[in-house]
Amino acid sequence: MKSIKTINRSDMTDIALGGAFLGTGGGGDPYIGRLMAEQAIDNYGPVQVRDVEALSDDALIIPVCMMGAPTVMLEKLPRGDEAINALRSLEAVLGRKADALFCIEAGGLNSTIPIAVAATAGLPIVDGDGMGRAFPELQMVSMTMFDIHACPMAMADEKGNALVLNTVDNLSTEKFARVITVEMGGAGLIALYPMTGAEAKKSILRGSLSLISNIGQIITYEQSANRNPADKLASELNGVRLFEGRITDVERRTEGGFARGQATIQGLEAYKGRSMKLNFQNEFLLAEDDKGKPLAMTPDLICLLDLETGQPITTETMGYGYRVIVFGLPCDPKWRSKHGLELVGPKYFGYEADYKPIEEIY
Amino acid sequence: MKSIKTINRSDMTDIALGGAFLGTGGGGDPYIGRLMAEQAIDNYGPVQVRDVEALSDDALIIPVCMMGAPTVMLEKLPRGDEAINALRSLEAVLGRKADALFCIEAGGLNSTIPIAVAATAGLPIVDGDGMGRAFPELQMVSMTMFDIHACPMAMADEKGNALVLNTVDNLSTEKFARVITVEMGGAGLIALYPMTGAEAKKSILRGSLSLISNIGQIITYEQSANRNPADKLASELNGVRLFEGRITDVERRTEGGFARGQATIQGLEAYKGRSMKLNFQNEFLLAEDDKGKPLAMTPDLICLLDLETGQPITTETMGYGYRVIVFGLPCDPKWRSKHGLELVGPKYFGYEADYKPIEEIY
Repeated sequence: MKSIKTINRSDMTDIALGGAFLGTGGGGDPYIGRLMAEQAIDNYGPVQVRDVEALSDDALIIPVCMMGAPTVMLEKLPRGDEAINALRSLEAVLGRKADALFCIEAGGLNSTIPIAVAATAGLPIVDGDGMGRAFPELQMVSMTMFDIHACPMAMADEKGNALVLNTVDNLSTEKFARVITVEMGGAGLIALYPMTGAEAKKSILRGSLSLISNIGQIITYEQSANRNPADKLASELNGVRLFEGRITDVERRTEGGFARGQATIQGLEAYKGRSMKLNFQNEFLLAEDDKGKPLAMTPDLICLLDLETGQPITTETMGYGYRVIVFGLPCDPKWRSKHGLELVGPKYFGYEADYKPIEEIY
Repeated sequence: MKSIKTINRSDMTDIALGGAFLGTGGGGDPYIGRLMAEQAIDNYGPVQVRDVEALSDDALIIPVCMMGAPTVMLEKLPRGDEAINALRSLEAVLGRKADALFCIEAGGLNSTIPIAVAATAGLPIVDGDGMGRAFPELQMVSMTMFDIHACPMAMADEKGNALVLNTVDNLSTEKFARVITVEMGGAGLIALYPMTGAEAKKSILRGSLSLISNIGQIITYEQSANRNPADKLASELNGVRLFEGRITDVERRTEGGFARGQATIQGLEAYKGRSMKLNFQNEFLLAEDDKGKPLAMTPDLICLLDLETGQPITTETMGYGYRVIVFGLPCDPKWRSKHGLELVGPKYFGYEADYKPIEEIY
């Protein structure tokens, strides 16, 4: 896999595409974030990407991202400076400036917004993230497993409201920030998990921006050759084609600041006569066959691709009649630890299934 | 009316009693606040009460109070240091220490907690408040009419969670703080409306602590003489006995961080054969006769007293069978302005009635 060292305007299409794929249906609409990043790069120049090992142990690294139901972000456009406002608020509380920015998750809007902020602030961005995919709640990051506190955390909305949170643990941060996000109209921009270089080195997932960029390149290349990228992605990423079919039902509700629901897919081609249920909370979390047997489950990645083009499909845009490929990928090994599964395993989300790695199901 | 210059332990009974009366059914349970204040005075000494005119124009004055559904405070005891934590957080953001504290409202818990905090912090307290009674929402203070911003505002709970809010206006402060209060388990301690001496001089209501203390003394004195204090309170405060009867129904729900509902009272003695409806949202807001005609309405004060003892009764403790006097008092003239009625008039709370001063109804 090729490392990305600099993010130019021309890289943003692949990054948005790769981010949409790793977003596993969530992470916000990458299109808006791509436009924001392209505009910021036009105005302020390209963004340097740094390996975390290259940062000093006492460097200050700050993740910035959007929080809320991605469905809302389709209708509530960011004003553009909320993320910078959140970053500046957090820096003010900490009494020092960030040395580098960071993506809290590798997916959709949240793998593009930090690039826009990095360009605007003239800061490098770390080649890594806290999830290796997208997850719906903010304590669901590898940093939580290493006792790094989400607070102080700054939040800002497009109206100019802002606040700084200090909670007793990361789950409380999520709970407070979530109700505030709802009050902000469903989504807000946040800066949190301020950490030193030393803390980042022990806790973050590596190479995420390079991975996103590579995935985007594969999808673009295969599409240009009129091939569905699913096979190439499967071989490059150790992934699995789980199912192919047509979406016949989507039940969707915005609830407690999340987009929750279930999609039903009727099999096509080799899968004819079978069906699949896809459960989601912002992201796809559990794929089950028609007998309720799990076929893939969180923290492993479940991605939805257009059956013809291989274009990633998000939970908020999928609808009746879409012909799709359901694609599975093993998660980062950190998530398969006891602590990791407590944070993001199927039981946390209220599903009964015991976690089984995707490689053991197939 | 006698001014109070120093608050000693022995003054707290009257202050809690007077605060419960002006709380118009809300403002939190004064008993808990009284205990907190008595303990703080035991530990740190009495509290000096200052006339706002005696403070310099650049003094920093900070109100501290409890926010939330008073019903919750009956079951969720404060840890004791939340209010000090909120004050210290706000001082940290402002970069300077408070010179005096202040009661945001004249009612129940919130006319006693600031005294506890003042004793603990060794600060004087201003003889005034922002409402001249209790109101359920935090933008409902005279300071809002003078464009004084509620933010920066600090909040703290008994678990150790804390935050600092900066919103675009005081109504937004209320909305954000309310959902956070709910997430804090229904109640939190807050420090807000930081203001200079000059700002306080133009905006606050005067003499509230002295008034509370005097009301408490009247109630205590009349009770000790086996007289119901209602008549004496009516003559001293320009008040009205609106109704006497037995509570036959209370419909009560905790909703959006408020204790909302309606009580029905069947007339006794001179009021026999008639009934009254009392609508409340933390505080009593609208008293109607059996034909739906308003008898008193917000911002005028509606207070409930025990028919035998004259003891003030709160919305959270009243229940079936209580024999009560409904007592009305004219509000501070500031509330009868156009801006005042927009903030706290009957229409804001969703009642159809046009505001009519209580003196014009009787």
